[in-house]
Amino acid sequence: MFETVKNRRTIRKYQSKDVSSDLLNDLLKTSFRASTMGGMQLYSVIVTRDAEVKDKLSPAHFNQPMVKEAPVVLTFCADFRRFTKWCEQRKAIPGYDNLMSFMNAAMDTLLVAQTFCVLAEEIGLGICYLGTTTYNPQMIIETLHLPKLVFPVTTVTVGYPDSVPEQVDRLPFDAIVHKEMYCDYTAEDIDRMYAYKESLPENKKFIDENRKETLAQVFTDVRYTKKDNEYMSDNLLKVLRLQGFLK
Amino acid sequence: MFETVKNRRTIRKYQSKDVSSDLLNDLLKTSFRASTMGGMQLYSVIVTRDAEVKDKLSPAHFNQPMVKEAPVVLTFCADFRRFTKWCEQRKAIPGYDNLMSFMNAAMDTLLVAQTFCVLAEEIGLGICYLGTTTYNPQMIIETLHLPKLVFPVTTVTVGYPDSVPEQVDRLPFDAIVHKEMYCDYTAEDIDRMYAYKESLPENKKFIDENRKETLAQVFTDVRYTKKDNEYMSDNLLKVLRLQGFLK
Repeated sequence: MFETVKNRRTIRKYQSKDVSSDLLNDLLKTSFRASTMGGMQLYSVIVTRDAEVKDKLSPAHFNQPMVKEAPVVLTFCADFRRFTKWCEQRKAIPGYDNLMSFMNAAMDTLLVAQTFCVLAEEIGLGICYLGTTTYNPQMIIETLHLPKLVFPVTTVTVGYPDSVPEQVDRLPFDAIVHKEMYCDYTAEDIDRMYAYKESLPENKKFIDENRKETLAQVFTDVRYTKKDNEYMSDNLLKVLRLQGFLK
Repeated sequence: MFETVKNRRTIRKYQSKDVSSDLLNDLLKTSFRASTMGGMQLYSVIVTRDAEVKDKLSPAHFNQPMVKEAPVVLTFCADFRRFTKWCEQRKAIPGYDNLMSFMNAAMDTLLVAQTFCVLAEEIGLGICYLGTTTYNPQMIIETLHLPKLVFPVTTVTVGYPDSVPEQVDRLPFDAIVHKEMYCDYTAEDIDRMYAYKESLPENKKFIDENRKETLAQVFTDVRYTKKDNEYMSDNLLKVLRLQGFLK
């Protein structure tokens, strides 16, 4: 399994071959063994195979082709609804309509999603996370009929890999790991840690294509802009409120 | 690996045997292959082995004994500081001091944490997640000297298992998975889905010990109360603001 994780790539192109329900269910069921706060299992998974539903989900993910092309799309949702309903049926007064409870449920959800992905890759499937899920949660909520206290945290497209891309770079180990205390980065650290990434031909091409001066500007001015982030932060708070996780 | 995940238990008692740095670093490095938004790797990991630091971290985790007893304590942090510093050194104007960016970084962080845990269990280590991390983030921030745009998301204690507990229950598969649309739960669904959990002798004992009428009341009145959740939600917003992720 180490080798699978070491050699993994995100897969965005899938064969038309289907992923059987038996296999998918076995992967999901196994992933539900992941750690969960207080044994509460604060998540739900919506399985999308239907082409019409994929068409409706697609714009929420900025029409990335994986949504329509992958045989299976999984929307992993933070879910305090099931647990809250149980409490209400058992003379218990639930108090999970708040941000801390959302965070707890979102954490549970992501541990399951990642366990699923590691298992799926081990048996030869390819996956892609769609970070767009929290950019347009309202569209996903409407399409999948998510009620209050349910919130889409992440989406994973799943299928057998068609083309396998080059593996992408990672920062040096010491850029990520700190011993005992956080060791803040000097200007020299930053130069050294990002040197390899900046040296890659594909990233140089990326700068040219976007008519920028530095790779960092491609991120700040094109891919993940302050304006978009601020808009989406406001939206996130708004939709958390609509779904009952904020007052 | 399927068998490892299927048979996993959270491990709270560890042998005194150390976890070698070589092994730990190999596990961490491999886990950094997990999916990450835009290749940004928005996380840092603080490795705690020092007994004094563990003593200081312990109260933040309500003095759960694993913090002092595990050979290794890992604090997984959402980190937009490194990336922001890089932007600032490259004539790029970062816009990551907001909630959406925190969420993106927290998601990256949790995917790495869970990849680490699956790998660690596969080679025979035991792990325990400490959900207390986001309950008392300020104490952890101070102890580990976390600067702005760094936020502790979760903590994992790691060591060789001493005693291996019974495996805990999980809800039925159809309680978690929805086909195409969220299928809301009827009262009968809830009764059926929670029946096994409620039937367990350890849970009946739990009700008695806490002098409650139902298992759900143990959760709402003792373990995860509305009052605590609301206090911690306010605190979470406060500390997110202090760390620069909210205005």
